[in-house]
Amino acid sequence: MTMASTGTGAGPGEDTGEAEHRVEETRWLSDEEQRVWLNYVHATTLLEDHLDRQLQRDAGMPHVYYGLLVKLSSAPRRRLRMTQLAMEAKITRSRLSHAIARLEENGWVRREECPSDKRGQNAYLTDQGFEMLKRSAPGHVAAVRQAIFDRLTPEQVAQLGEIMQVMAEGLQPEGTGADLPWRR
Amino acid sequence: MTMASTGTGAGPGEDTGEAEHRVEETRWLSDEEQRVWLNYVHATTLLEDHLDRQLQRDAGMPHVYYGLLVKLSSAPRRRLRMTQLAMEAKITRSRLSHAIARLEENGWVRREECPSDKRGQNAYLTDQGFEMLKRSAPGHVAAVRQAIFDRLTPEQVAQLGEIMQVMAEGLQPEGTGADLPWRR
Repeated sequence: MTMASTGTGAGPGEDTGEAEHRVEETRWLSDEEQRVWLNYVHATTLLEDHLDRQLQRDAGMPHVYYGLLVKLSSAPRRRLRMTQLAMEAKITRSRLSHAIARLEENGWVRREECPSDKRGQNAYLTDQGFEMLKRSAPGHVAAVRQAIFDRLTPEQVAQLGEIMQVMAEGLQPEGTGADLPWRR
Repeated sequence: MTMASTGTGAGPGEDTGEAEHRVEETRWLSDEEQRVWLNYVHATTLLEDHLDRQLQRDAGMPHVYYGLLVKLSSAPRRRLRMTQLAMEAKITRSRLSHAIARLEENGWVRREECPSDKRGQNAYLTDQGFEMLKRSAPGHVAAVRQAIFDRLTPEQVAQLGEIMQVMAEGLQPEGTGADLPWRR
């Protein structure tokens, strides 16, 4: 038995008696599942690098930051509560705070007290941020299209949408207990 | 026209004459494509957070670091050239160096001169690193299985594998010019 290349396949080699018990309990991935998982890790890692690279060059920020600006741009009056923005971006509040602080330095975002709740904070997209988005959106959509939509068949696009929806729903179960980034 | 929630759909609102030209040239994503892209971003962001969280708790490291140890574990004599490891993990050499330095501090990895090429360096998995992998692999495979393989139908698993392979291949074209992470 050898450790699979993804760490999710067969158990580690040279099982000791101690490890045997745990190995028997674990439903290791099949060869086919390992292949799928490796493809998933490769594709998602490469695409995130590709988008980060393109956006760093064209907009001076990584993909996650860019996504925050886009969410603000489509919100009413271009503003969202910080807690809502963290939830929509699926990131932790501390990561959001750090990102917003950086975007403020560039003049693209500002924070303000939430009028309806003094404890809350809004972030809003400045005119300067909106102009920057306008300039960089064509390059971003071209990169996404080239990586995904120009390469997949219409059937595969539909399948990808379904699959990713199932996965996303599974990872953010309804209810209170789940350890979701924006609740930390 | 409103800025789509992903920054890849319709162009920014309130087009000025200046922006009009660029907007016409850009093939913005359709509503369906935007939905797929948003699902993709949500699922991949949530899964990476989930795996990072699980591995930080159980193995004291993020998913990317864990993946490096797994790749070493399945290599001959548990060692790989650093350049090869960066390519297999789809990351930059500087990110790899940083990760390996951290893993060395924990005693899980060591570096050595490459015997066949004095300019090259190998990384190898220590016995301590191998034992740590053994302990943490069952939890990792359970997290991956729960997020993907237990939720998707066998057809969807096959589709996901195909789609991710097409995407990964597109993002790392053969030949010399491509700006790939491990060449930087």
